[in-house]
Amino acid sequence: MWRDLLPIGRHEATGGYRRFAWTAADTDCRAWFRAQAESRGLAYELDRNGNQWAWWGDPAGADAVVTGSHLDSVPEGGAFDGPLGVVSSFAAVDELLARGARPNRPLAVVNFGDEEGARFGVACVGSRLTAGRLTAEGAHALRDADGVSLAQAMERAGHDPAAIGPDHERLARIGAFVELHVEQGRALDRTGHPIGVASAIWPHGRWRFDFRGEANHAGTTRLEDRRDPMLTYANTVLAARKKARLAGALATFGKVSVEPNGVNAIASLVRGWLDSRAADEETLASVVAEIERTAVERGQRDGVEVTVTRESFTPVVEFAHGLRDELAALLGGVPVLPTGAGHDAGILSDAVPTAMLFVRNPTGVSHSPAEAATEDDCLAGVTALADVLEGLACR
Amino acid sequence: MWRDLLPIGRHEATGGYRRFAWTAADTDCRAWFRAQAESRGLAYELDRNGNQWAWWGDPAGADAVVTGSHLDSVPEGGAFDGPLGVVSSFAAVDELLARGARPNRPLAVVNFGDEEGARFGVACVGSRLTAGRLTAEGAHALRDADGVSLAQAMERAGHDPAAIGPDHERLARIGAFVELHVEQGRALDRTGHPIGVASAIWPHGRWRFDFRGEANHAGTTRLEDRRDPMLTYANTVLAARKKARLAGALATFGKVSVEPNGVNAIASLVRGWLDSRAADEETLASVVAEIERTAVERGQRDGVEVTVTRESFTPVVEFAHGLRDELAALLGGVPVLPTGAGHDAGILSDAVPTAMLFVRNPTGVSHSPAEAATEDDCLAGVTALADVLEGLACR
Repeated sequence: MWRDLLPIGRHEATGGYRRFAWTAADTDCRAWFRAQAESRGLAYELDRNGNQWAWWGDPAGADAVVTGSHLDSVPEGGAFDGPLGVVSSFAAVDELLARGARPNRPLAVVNFGDEEGARFGVACVGSRLTAGRLTAEGAHALRDADGVSLAQAMERAGHDPAAIGPDHERLARIGAFVELHVEQGRALDRTGHPIGVASAIWPHGRWRFDFRGEANHAGTTRLEDRRDPMLTYANTVLAARKKARLAGALATFGKVSVEPNGVNAIASLVRGWLDSRAADEETLASVVAEIERTAVERGQRDGVEVTVTRESFTPVVEFAHGLRDELAALLGGVPVLPTGAGHDAGILSDAVPTAMLFVRNPTGVSHSPAEAATEDDCLAGVTALADVLEGLACR
Repeated sequence: MWRDLLPIGRHEATGGYRRFAWTAADTDCRAWFRAQAESRGLAYELDRNGNQWAWWGDPAGADAVVTGSHLDSVPEGGAFDGPLGVVSSFAAVDELLARGARPNRPLAVVNFGDEEGARFGVACVGSRLTAGRLTAEGAHALRDADGVSLAQAMERAGHDPAAIGPDHERLARIGAFVELHVEQGRALDRTGHPIGVASAIWPHGRWRFDFRGEANHAGTTRLEDRRDPMLTYANTVLAARKKARLAGALATFGKVSVEPNGVNAIASLVRGWLDSRAADEETLASVVAEIERTAVERGQRDGVEVTVTRESFTPVVEFAHGLRDELAALLGGVPVLPTGAGHDAGILSDAVPTAMLFVRNPTGVSHSPAEAATEDDCLAGVTALADVLEGLACR
């Protein structure tokens, strides 16, 4: 099962994945999902928001138990972030079959579309649309770096974009959603446990900082005549790190674009994207405000105009305590821990009782080819997920 | 004449130019040059390195007087950098004809190919190849950002790349080269003179700084577990400005590329290009060494590996004193001043007596749509260039 999926969208030179929503690599991943469903005799379904479902039992039945994750990736992503959850879901179905377990509730494996937001800049598009947390109009306004709209990209991949939008009826039929995911830090590794249960997702957001100066010749413009936005950007990068450190929060500039981006031209525009997260929303707001204030102050010194646009924001997610405690009990007292990463599970948690399982990551690295999980831990994840599904769906 | 040239390669939204070597816009500029030559009955010639010539008199004659500049641009460049010199050269020919002047030496207008180096990263490719300061092998190794080689780009534009290389015989037939150029700073504006003569070009170079860290998830990796090259880059940008200021030199980071460049991924690699210039080579070397030392030191703190590659270097150019003094005398005591910008005139100055005329730029801005010159000053430039050509070629 893994073997067929592994080569799709892998960049030969780096070993990293480039599986962006509605690209050829994504289409190949989707074909893989459908083949996995059909080979197990599960009813395959593609919903109007581009999420794929594989049903054991009645797809229209009530109180369904759903598990799964996503197959798309960040640029140069690792092999596990997303796919581990989908592969483990199918493997857990196999395990239930082998145990002779028979669900008395509908059980489904899901692949949510465009979780990473690598192409259109908004994460969890498939689950956000379904939950009504991204409107159809908002989705239609999204464009990739080449100016291709989300609707055009869907059409080119053979999916009709006309019907995208909230799907509350579908969510109302889900009694529990459990997402298994590779851990994206080293907290489990430090506890010595291969498997953990999520308590909460930190609130997080993305802010675009536009630094506007004046393009000019790098060889003839006196330093005192310059309005160089690269200086303001650089100062803001260092300030973000410092403010986050002092507040016990996270702040990262990982994406930049520069105009005109010529070696011998002072930049006219530097755009930097800030990703910031903290344990609570008040701390997060205060860290971002301090970074913005520092940027504006330095901009005044550099003759650079700074504008800040919040591109996305996800409030704190407290996973359903009942389900969380039920999972921890089913798994015999595994660690319960928070995460800073966003997930489809977080998007759905308002509408559906939702829980997450984490599989230990010995490097702690994620969103990189160095992302890791041992085979033993992956198998422990499958067993744990099968235990959870059996506990929820077969009693 | 200007009217036909102005729309070529202009970006509607910004008013900036994108005339990169061997693109469609460049081909259109070249067609314009040829039409200008032919409409005046000048003998048109394309040399094997892709430079265009328009000859008044015998193209094979000795002791020629050559004037001209280039038609390509930086990304989002202004209208004057390059084209002003070519347009003024044709206009000066018209002025000589109107005066009834008749050259007793061959006189040529030239358009040197790929002066800005915006596409292949090396400036002055046409004149460097001709002067033997870029080898044919070196030129064949150049590739643009899409992996297209210089030879492929030439072929696609209809130019045979097989014969590129030194053309000393051609240079030996040139008795003097005079390049008119818009000034790229505000020195003339401060003197109140519309026209100046160049004394020297500051030594300058380009250095690529590679900052290698570790890609990781921006939402789950603790600050103390990170190896974030964006921090090292940011610190280096600020250090470069400071070191340059203390040394009275120039240092600019205007071009950056980031991998994987995702909003929620800590960068694995940040590449920044340093452009630095100073009045003498010793100062320049010392400024760049200090910037590199600071980058490496900060890299050790950030867990980031820093490597620095010198991509190009142009030594100081002292223009021929005899020719320079002759021009200043012909023009009646105009200011004589240095510049920080590289030019084809600088490349040729080892092989040919070379001089430059500058036309006042009231904004001092260059490599940007805000680059400027008044109509009166442009006309003064044409008159000055005609005076110089008449003085050199018609006595």
